Amino acid sequence: MFIYQRTAQYHETDQMGFIHHANYIKWMEESRIAFLQSIGAEYRHLEEQGLTSPVIDVHVSYKNPVRFSDTILIGIRIRSYSGVRLELAYEISSSDGTLHASADSTHCFLENGRVVSLRKRYPDLDTLILKQAEKDILSAHNP
Amino acid sequence: MFIYQRTAQYHETDQMGFIHHANYIKWMEESRIAFLQSIGAEYRHLEEQGLTSPVIDVHVSYKNPVRFSDTILIGIRIRSYSGVRLELAYEISSSDGTLHASADSTHCFLENGRVVSLRKRYPDLDTLILKQAEKDILSAHNP
Amino acid sequence: MFIYQRTAQYHETDQMGFIHHANYIKWMEESRIAFLQSIGAEYRHLEEQGLTSPVIDVHVSYKNPVRFSDTILIGIRIRSYSGVRLELAYEISSSDGTLHASADSTHCFLENGRVVSLRKRYPDLDTLILKQAEKDILSAHNP
Amino acid sequence: MFIYQRTAQYHETDQMGFIHHANYIKWMEESRIAFLQSIGAEYRHLEEQGLTSPVIDVHVSYKNPVRFSDTILIGIRIRSYSGVRLELAYEISSSDGTLHASADSTHCFLENGRVVSLRKRYPDLDTLILKQAEKDILSAHNP
Repeated sequence: MFIYQRTAQYHETDQMGFIHHANYIKWMEESRIAFLQSIGAEYRHLEEQGLTSPVIDVHVSYKNPVRFSDTILIGIRIRSYSGVRLELAYEISSSDGTLHASADSTHCFLENGRVVSLRKRYPDLDTLILKQAEKDILSAHNP
Repeated sequence: MFIYQRTAQYHETDQMGFIHHANYIKWMEESRIAFLQSIGAEYRHLEEQGLTSPVIDVHVSYKNPVRFSDTILIGIRIRSYSGVRLELAYEISSSDGTLHASADSTHCFLENGRVVSLRKRYPDLDTLILKQAEKDILSAHNP
Repeated sequence: MFIYQRTAQYHETDQMGFIHHANYIKWMEESRIAFLQSIGAEYRHLEEQGLTSPVIDVHVSYKNPVRFSDTILIGIRIRSYSGVRLELAYEISSSDGTLHASADSTHCFLENGRVVSLRKRYPDLDTLILKQAEKDILSAHNP
Repeated sequence: MFIYQRTAQYHETDQMGFIHHANYIKWMEESRIAFLQSIGAEYRHLEEQGLTSPVIDVHVSYKNPVRFSDTILIGIRIRSYSGVRLELAYEISSSDGTLHASADSTHCFLENGRVVSLRKRYPDLDTLILKQAEKDILSAHNP
């Protein structure tokens, strides 16, 4: 599983004394972009070509709070991929093994505001995601 | 249903040209605090008494993007309440009827970091929530 | 002086127990957009015409902290305007008279990424700002 | 000069297509905390001892916009230190030498909400800052 590492920042805390829960959504995005990069897909270049990948669904289950200056590890993997829809799963934890949150997000792909099939319009990107999806789905079933 | 009104801000947009999806989580919090106030529960006073209500689960389904300077209406209602756990449902829409997102969040109640039953420790707050829960659950079943 | 009103939000606090200082910059932007609207200039429409107005300088002097749920009043006025450069002054206070911060920001105007003179390219907008600048500069000198 | 490195994130952009200017204030904070750590002062531990260091003044001069996925280098140094007041200077640039912004911030020190002299109350921290201040002020004058 791809791991994205991150330090929890002071400006991300709230007056409860922990990281505010909305920031997890931003961390998921950061890890997603790093994950895509790790498989050879630069989100910046994709956008320059006219492709965007908006979030259509997000779910976070908060387990243990994160504190300022904690080092956070975000494990991310593909849960499903259909060529038009991508579902990702996340585990947000600390190096000591504490699980802070588990989460998932679902994405479609847009070209000029219209839903497209990567399979048809971006076959190279489709191949990159498909290859990773096979790895991730296999290892989830045979951990 | 309680409605919280909000203008989408420029600093909430991203380079896709719409409001960034993490902000919906913040808007839900704003509407939740206004909703609690509308039933007689000031979140600021609750915290001063030592009670906090962290989010333990959040789910957002994004339907139509929001643009800078749009006026947004957030409808919020209680979906379930057990005395120790509160589940809220949200509809984020525009005055023209466009549905931007539907969402829900689940909360527990903590006193000095420990889960408490409102029923036992904060009976007045429990009564306020219970009364609203009955109204909201009734009107959801008989719209 | 134009006054923009705002409630300080929970998600804007940090673990010091007050509103995080970066949010004042966002509040200044919100008040600036409302101020421009009040004199007849819709920032959304200006951007749709291809005009942007980036911040080139910002300064904030923090006086007294803001707490969650405080009602904040942001007074904003034009300090100087040259047709190519706009300088604004802000006072962030509470209704009880507490001054939380004083601030200023300087802006230029861009069309397709190039600096433009409003006087030459957007004479209508130039007139609106000029009229307000005269009022604001007069009343600052004769309060 | 201490250098803090940072990737500009997608969620930090706005619809102008660049990083929103309020995020620079957050980056300055991140670099400040890393800088203090580099001289032996952990901000988290200081807060646990009851010491906070609020921002009392901030100034940013924006030069060239930052884009999503840019690698940003923030150079930070002490401009002045009096035992009760700390002034820091920042240069935000890219590895190719582009200067994105120059900035400064001023801080005091609070114990239980009251201004304190580090010299009197936290002599160890005072020594750490003083030693770095001498280095930074010397090298600024003899670059």
